[in-house]
Amino acid sequence: MRADARDNRARIMTAADEVFGRTPGASTDDVARLAGVGIATVFRHFPTKTELLEAVLTLRLERLRDRALELADSDDPGTAFYAFFTQVVSESASKLAIAEALAAAGTAIGADTQKAGQGMREAFDGLLTRAQRAGAVRADAQFPETYALLIGASRGATAAALEPHVRDRMLALIYDGLKPRS
Amino acid sequence: MRADARDNRARIMTAADEVFGRTPGASTDDVARLAGVGIATVFRHFPTKTELLEAVLTLRLERLRDRALELADSDDPGTAFYAFFTQVVSESASKLAIAEALAAAGTAIGADTQKAGQGMREAFDGLLTRAQRAGAVRADAQFPETYALLIGASRGATAAALEPHVRDRMLALIYDGLKPRS
Repeated sequence: MRADARDNRARIMTAADEVFGRTPGASTDDVARLAGVGIATVFRHFPTKTELLEAVLTLRLERLRDRALELADSDDPGTAFYAFFTQVVSESASKLAIAEALAAAGTAIGADTQKAGQGMREAFDGLLTRAQRAGAVRADAQFPETYALLIGASRGATAAALEPHVRDRMLALIYDGLKPRS
Repeated sequence: MRADARDNRARIMTAADEVFGRTPGASTDDVARLAGVGIATVFRHFPTKTELLEAVLTLRLERLRDRALELADSDDPGTAFYAFFTQVVSESASKLAIAEALAAAGTAIGADTQKAGQGMREAFDGLLTRAQRAGAVRADAQFPETYALLIGASRGATAAALEPHVRDRMLALIYDGLKPRS
């Protein structure tokens, strides 16, 4: 891919992330307008809206995975785990909007997106295990229910359009449940 | 309304609750078939699918409110609060499917459904306050974040299609966060 084509692709993805993250029902036209490219350029890179949505959601998941992997090197595994949990919940409104747009498009999630989701879950599991070893998360909290809590907190914050201070208080309750009883 | 018309209405609502609770995209035809009435009878009681969905969702919310009010008389406010929380989360998959079908119909939630939702929230707030007075829920958990937790747990359980034992372990983590630290 030539440099200007790569630039265009990156601009389209950034615009699509913003547009669909805010308005799941937005059109490819809206994306082209914000990216400052013609609609034909969008379709050259992403022949269908579904492909564009998948690419954006995959990028989101890959970034979260990368963030988790970065935090996994932290000297303070407890802080790393809770920071990641908070970041996922804070970003959830726009990420879920993209997932919702994809679901509304009636397509099964493609292989790339599934792989990115799997990578994110594994990285979260790594953070959980390290935080447990450090005594910052109770040892009996297994991955499935801890991940369900992450998804639940994300969806709860999104559905109720929580104000940040209510979201933070909800997270404080969840974190107290995850911390070992002294 | 005559007795047979009332019977038909009740059968249609029961069938709709089951059909839409399982398959948000189901048709009014499916409801008529399960109810054992003609499609014309369904439309006589509920001129649009939206009206039928609203009626079913309203009934769900009213039943939850009634259950909360009933539990409010319990001698054990702590057990009452956690039992209600668990019931809402357990029923959430089918209730959310109905809410989703309504959202997909593109209609704003009507006044009756809003009022039923408000009644349910108030009854939950009553259970929370009593459980706090009884020392079964920490005193600093306010209604907004506790309700956000309820919504989050419901949506988390639904989105992840959690198996009952994972759901119960997720709830155990949440309940530990809600209980006063000894």
